[in-house]
Amino acid sequence: MNLRHIIRIQCSDRKGLIAAITGVVFANNLNIVVMKEFVETNYNLFFARLEVSGEMEPGVMTTQLREQLPGDAAVEIIAKEPKQLVVLVTKEYHCLCDLLVRHHFGEMNAKIKAVIGNYDVLQNITERFDLPFICISHEAREKQAYEQEVLALLQQLNPDYIVLAKFMRILSPDFVAAFSNRIINIHHSFLPAFVGANPYRKAYERGVKLIGATAHFVTNDLDEGPIITQKVIAADHEYDVAGMIKAGHEVEKSVLADALKLVLEDRVFVTGNRTIIFD
Amino acid sequence: MNLRHIIRIQCSDRKGLIAAITGVVFANNLNIVVMKEFVETNYNLFFARLEVSGEMEPGVMTTQLREQLPGDAAVEIIAKEPKQLVVLVTKEYHCLCDLLVRHHFGEMNAKIKAVIGNYDVLQNITERFDLPFICISHEAREKQAYEQEVLALLQQLNPDYIVLAKFMRILSPDFVAAFSNRIINIHHSFLPAFVGANPYRKAYERGVKLIGATAHFVTNDLDEGPIITQKVIAADHEYDVAGMIKAGHEVEKSVLADALKLVLEDRVFVTGNRTIIFD
Amino acid sequence: MNLRHIIRIQCSDRKGLIAAITGVVFANNLNIVVMKEFVETNYNLFFARLEVSGEMEPGVMTTQLREQLPGDAAVEIIAKEPKQLVVLVTKEYHCLCDLLVRHHFGEMNAKIKAVIGNYDVLQNITERFDLPFICISHEAREKQAYEQEVLALLQQLNPDYIVLAKFMRILSPDFVAAFSNRIINIHHSFLPAFVGANPYRKAYERGVKLIGATAHFVTNDLDEGPIITQKVIAADHEYDVAGMIKAGHEVEKSVLADALKLVLEDRVFVTGNRTIIFD
Amino acid sequence: MNLRHIIRIQCSDRKGLIAAITGVVFANNLNIVVMKEFVETNYNLFFARLEVSGEMEPGVMTTQLREQLPGDAAVEIIAKEPKQLVVLVTKEYHCLCDLLVRHHFGEMNAKIKAVIGNYDVLQNITERFDLPFICISHEAREKQAYEQEVLALLQQLNPDYIVLAKFMRILSPDFVAAFSNRIINIHHSFLPAFVGANPYRKAYERGVKLIGATAHFVTNDLDEGPIITQKVIAADHEYDVAGMIKAGHEVEKSVLADALKLVLEDRVFVTGNRTIIFD
Repeated sequence: MNLRHIIRIQCSDRKGLIAAITGVVFANNLNIVVMKEFVETNYNLFFARLEVSGEMEPGVMTTQLREQLPGDAAVEIIAKEPKQLVVLVTKEYHCLCDLLVRHHFGEMNAKIKAVIGNYDVLQNITERFDLPFICISHEAREKQAYEQEVLALLQQLNPDYIVLAKFMRILSPDFVAAFSNRIINIHHSFLPAFVGANPYRKAYERGVKLIGATAHFVTNDLDEGPIITQKVIAADHEYDVAGMIKAGHEVEKSVLADALKLVLEDRVFVTGNRTIIFD
Repeated sequence: MNLRHIIRIQCSDRKGLIAAITGVVFANNLNIVVMKEFVETNYNLFFARLEVSGEMEPGVMTTQLREQLPGDAAVEIIAKEPKQLVVLVTKEYHCLCDLLVRHHFGEMNAKIKAVIGNYDVLQNITERFDLPFICISHEAREKQAYEQEVLALLQQLNPDYIVLAKFMRILSPDFVAAFSNRIINIHHSFLPAFVGANPYRKAYERGVKLIGATAHFVTNDLDEGPIITQKVIAADHEYDVAGMIKAGHEVEKSVLADALKLVLEDRVFVTGNRTIIFD
Repeated sequence: MNLRHIIRIQCSDRKGLIAAITGVVFANNLNIVVMKEFVETNYNLFFARLEVSGEMEPGVMTTQLREQLPGDAAVEIIAKEPKQLVVLVTKEYHCLCDLLVRHHFGEMNAKIKAVIGNYDVLQNITERFDLPFICISHEAREKQAYEQEVLALLQQLNPDYIVLAKFMRILSPDFVAAFSNRIINIHHSFLPAFVGANPYRKAYERGVKLIGATAHFVTNDLDEGPIITQKVIAADHEYDVAGMIKAGHEVEKSVLADALKLVLEDRVFVTGNRTIIFD
Repeated sequence: MNLRHIIRIQCSDRKGLIAAITGVVFANNLNIVVMKEFVETNYNLFFARLEVSGEMEPGVMTTQLREQLPGDAAVEIIAKEPKQLVVLVTKEYHCLCDLLVRHHFGEMNAKIKAVIGNYDVLQNITERFDLPFICISHEAREKQAYEQEVLALLQQLNPDYIVLAKFMRILSPDFVAAFSNRIINIHHSFLPAFVGANPYRKAYERGVKLIGATAHFVTNDLDEGPIITQKVIAADHEYDVAGMIKAGHEVEKSVLADALKLVLEDRVFVTGNRTIIFD
């Protein structure tokens, strides 16, 4: 049996942490496949991610690690198993289809439990991949009632992460609070430029020469959550708004796929409004 | 004699413009080395840049072209000759040195007439390249008096373009108005993100995964002028503010050099707050 | 009625070509939506692509243009209509699925008539998109017989272009000759590096820091045909061969999609072993 | 006193190496500023680079580390001090000037002891930066005699690294052997494409859409040594050979600067013909 686990540690920094951690790992006869760590000197914070192989009792291991670490240490030991996802969409197909194909062929370390749309536009394509699509319309009803219904469904599905794959509704604080650092959004600009609606129109009007996309965790502040990945592409004067939108789709799906890969492999730490990512 | 001229035309669009323009060029027995044009359909505007070879009487040619073009046409005929530049700097050497080397070896289509600094830090390196350095300090005096002195010197030097190569003073409207679309600044962020002071600190605090630089014409609105070129590089969590500044220097000098090349070869049109660039 | 046509011209260069071409266009009361041209001075060749709107008699127009152009001129006038494609695959799904999704949502200027595989691995996914999949196995038979069967099917389907979307068989000269400059291949390296089989293994062994992909027209010389698009991504020492293959998939599908877009919009000219592309 | 040292370890891999190494570091009361390690599983090789602060006796430390490591371990402990460089050039100024500016302003962790040219073209610019330039002409003499003279001078100067900043002479095996993995070359193509002379001409003729540069250690096989860094830029059909050369200069100086930074900070390990780089 060659079990694989991810050990994630986040704590205040002090001398000897790596020796202490790797000492415990070695004493448990585990092999370190890969280890990465980082000290955020501005805040005296230590982060580490180890991928280890060998038989392990996670509870015991966690206790042993805690004994060696500062009192504020967060220790996670995670078996390398697929995560559970729910994807929220509106009408645009490009990010969803990218995920559907990757999921269908087992490329993601994840299982998509369902796709939820506020329109039924993407029901057909979702069902072609044998995945359930639930349409919960926001139209002609109060935002709170709409969100309650989505929230109830999500709590029943109980995913590890919620992916907003071009979901064009702004979620209210209660909703977001229920899934802290577990909702991943793709925003169609290189944040913090062009927060909010119609970023490509704003980009066109500002005359920028780059357009981009940003994947980030959702917080209560619109488009202000911790950034996971960002990419840009060149856009010269020949790009009108429609051209930017079309070209932007390519970046959006690529950025979202990259961000999800990092999250699903437990590579992303959130600290304040920033991310530490061991790729 | 194989004279080269640039013909630049900007006017409202209508059918037959290219036929009309190239007809005049052909009738004058000129050869079109390269021609690029663009129609901004949102505003019904036509832009063209032709590089032609052959003997030409620019005044006659301009008249002939105007006869064929809409009444709002701006027609420029420019001999391919080096432009005159003045460079304004503060303390950072990286952009200035990049220009000094390119200038020294004749890489730029330009002649640097002088470097003006508000400190004398860069005097030594400028003089190593046999160029005059004038230090006009802003310290212990009113902004207006300081700017008047710089402005007087600039008017005497009478350059085609003024390059702010990490010049860290904000110019007042009168100053800017004296050189409309002739002052080029390098800003150390991918605008419109992180306008104003300390963009790298803001980038660090926002936790962005890209840092960049923007070269733009200076207008009265801080960092809001027409953008010429932009580039970004990846910046992960290992970059603190100092690391971003260092890495950013590489982008800044590259972006400024690219922008200047475009401007000095008469490839940049300004329309509203946007640029049309025939590269 | 606002018809759109593409006019493509390729001929030896001489003074006055643009005036002559645009004169004909104007005389026919057509509007030039966009025009791009290029002179390859090394070989004295002129290339132009115009997108025009308005009513037109292509046969008459072609005759009028020929009268104004050198005797070696190739003139094409093409209505903006979807092209017909056949896609050839082996076992890898990533490029095919990228095309299937784009095709399904009308993103490509093309109609996929069929997918032909030398294995049936990709039959299921193709049929989920309501497209015919024909499996023609190459196993246990002579190459010539295999190719004859594929060729016969292709001649019956009669596509404008054949896309080798990770089709891992080398086509013999007769096959290629039947579709000159109409077969587009995606090769998983930045050509001319790593021609032939197993480019990622070769890349790993050479220790390169970039991996890439190349879309090109197929000629008789393996991986030597005219290049349409190329892209690379960084690959550090953490990439083993499997990691390179996985990362490479992202580049391959992106490069192939970009190349197809250019070809399907009649933007690509082939001259010798090079391409002139008006994007 | 806050001394900084780099600890570099290269050995066959086995369980417990990180615990052993960090245990020694902790026992010596040193603080790990940053640590990176890598296991090359194909060859069962372990690589680590630690940056530590605190007072240390390198000889004692090395002995203690060796006791904990496999018999084949290479252990280096290096004080963070500037390296000594000699730069070899021919006629092109762009890479040399980039180094001269960085060196002049203390940007490199290095001291340039001298610039040696086989022409005197770059003497003037070198001396403007107060650095000695020695011209050793290769003309009208045997290659062996020429190389002996350069070699004698290099042995007298005794640099840590030799930088070939567009030095266009091929060095013979004896010369290379005298400075194994200590000669860094910049080649003006993305290797392994376009080995040898005139890579831009070959790139033009092949019709590639990317051009690039590669910094590598020099070995006896021309352009076959371990690659340190590579970059490419897009090059469409408008680039003729001269245009590629000009655009390529930008990449070349950037790639060489990046590679030197990595080497001078002791971040590069060579294993076989590949490099492991902890950046």
